[in-house]
Amino acid sequence: MTCSPMLNPPKNLHVCLSPALIPQYNVEDYIVVIVDIFRATSSICYGIDNGAEAIIPVAEVEECIAYRNIGLNYLLAAERNGEVVAGFDFGNSPFSYTREKVGGKTVVLTTTNGTQALHLSRSAKRIVIGSFLNLTALSKWLKIQNESILLVCAGWKNNFNLEDTIFAGAVIEQIKGSSFKLDDPAIAANDLYQLAKDDLPGYLAKTSHSERLKKLGIEKDIAFCLNVDITSSIPVLVGEKLVRLS
Amino acid sequence: MTCSPMLNPPKNLHVCLSPALIPQYNVEDYIVVIVDIFRATSSICYGIDNGAEAIIPVAEVEECIAYRNIGLNYLLAAERNGEVVAGFDFGNSPFSYTREKVGGKTVVLTTTNGTQALHLSRSAKRIVIGSFLNLTALSKWLKIQNESILLVCAGWKNNFNLEDTIFAGAVIEQIKGSSFKLDDPAIAANDLYQLAKDDLPGYLAKTSHSERLKKLGIEKDIAFCLNVDITSSIPVLVGEKLVRLS
Repeated sequence: MTCSPMLNPPKNLHVCLSPALIPQYNVEDYIVVIVDIFRATSSICYGIDNGAEAIIPVAEVEECIAYRNIGLNYLLAAERNGEVVAGFDFGNSPFSYTREKVGGKTVVLTTTNGTQALHLSRSAKRIVIGSFLNLTALSKWLKIQNESILLVCAGWKNNFNLEDTIFAGAVIEQIKGSSFKLDDPAIAANDLYQLAKDDLPGYLAKTSHSERLKKLGIEKDIAFCLNVDITSSIPVLVGEKLVRLS
Repeated sequence: MTCSPMLNPPKNLHVCLSPALIPQYNVEDYIVVIVDIFRATSSICYGIDNGAEAIIPVAEVEECIAYRNIGLNYLLAAERNGEVVAGFDFGNSPFSYTREKVGGKTVVLTTTNGTQALHLSRSAKRIVIGSFLNLTALSKWLKIQNESILLVCAGWKNNFNLEDTIFAGAVIEQIKGSSFKLDDPAIAANDLYQLAKDDLPGYLAKTSHSERLKKLGIEKDIAFCLNVDITSSIPVLVGEKLVRLS
């Protein structure tokens, strides 16, 4: 009698389109990828790739200040309405996360949407950070984990946005196949990515968020966040800190 | 001095992708369209067009029974797992909503997703019901209301589904233009509709919900719900009842 090899049952490849929808998922069943393209997760990927020792995402400027008050030598990044908050080291622009600025340092970063998504995903098997900057590195790693994957879009004010969804679709494009089962949001994200992939900046220029960010005068940041595969690190949450996955 | 005519500022044309996202909208600013393609809003459109005096959507079978207990001569429609609940007149199949069966009658219909979406939208300026069956009639009416519009997808278990989103995109396709401003979910819905429009059944065959419904043996219902423009009535909520908009 021959033994046929046990086949792995397909894992789930799901997309959560807004933090408000996280309660619809059993987060503990998944590796969660947090996505906040404009600009938190792009800046985090860039900073970790540029040698930041750790990045600590917090929701409020006050929490950021609390880190300074306890006397730690952390860089503090906080921005309101496109301006660096007085007394802080820098804002949320990815251009602040260069090797010169963050190499060997710990950065405390305020980000409302991203922090909320992260907080609500705490019970996941693992939490990693995605952006176009590390798209392929992240996708390759996800593909070999043999776990169900939930891409959590941080969105905008607790609702759906296009840029995070399109990125989720880009990850799905790289890893989909017989070993993954897609839910409806994943199918939609992947289909939207097909429409956007040949001209990401052009496609995303029509979004409401992009309009908002233009008003803040940060078009250069937006363009930078759409650079594909310029980094190879995967930030992973360990305790309260995002560090480089080794 | 000449007076230039006051131009109407653009109205909002927004899509709420799941009942769980309704709190992100000021519902009172909109005419709300409830969308639950498989099968509640399709059956409602068909029933109202076939002369039902009113349709009362309720969430639970028990509420349905309560209507019988107070002695009213209503038809009761309730289904669990694709079977008509014992003692009820019929289930949720649109084929139950023919003129012979519902003409001149009031129907109490149990529908979990649809009822929840409706309940959460109570404070809207007006609530109407949409499905592919009344797509063009509904769109033409919406276009001339000079109000902001929120298409509320009932979705599946409080999450996004493709069929409701594609329908929202179909409405947007008919009414978009300079007099409406789309949000990101509306852009996404309309883009997905472009991918689906030439073969709605084929596109939607890949959705998870469609798979579930196939298991219930109701493929004929699904096919029927994708008939475009076979009715011309617009069901509107008056009190607790859906009636024909006159």
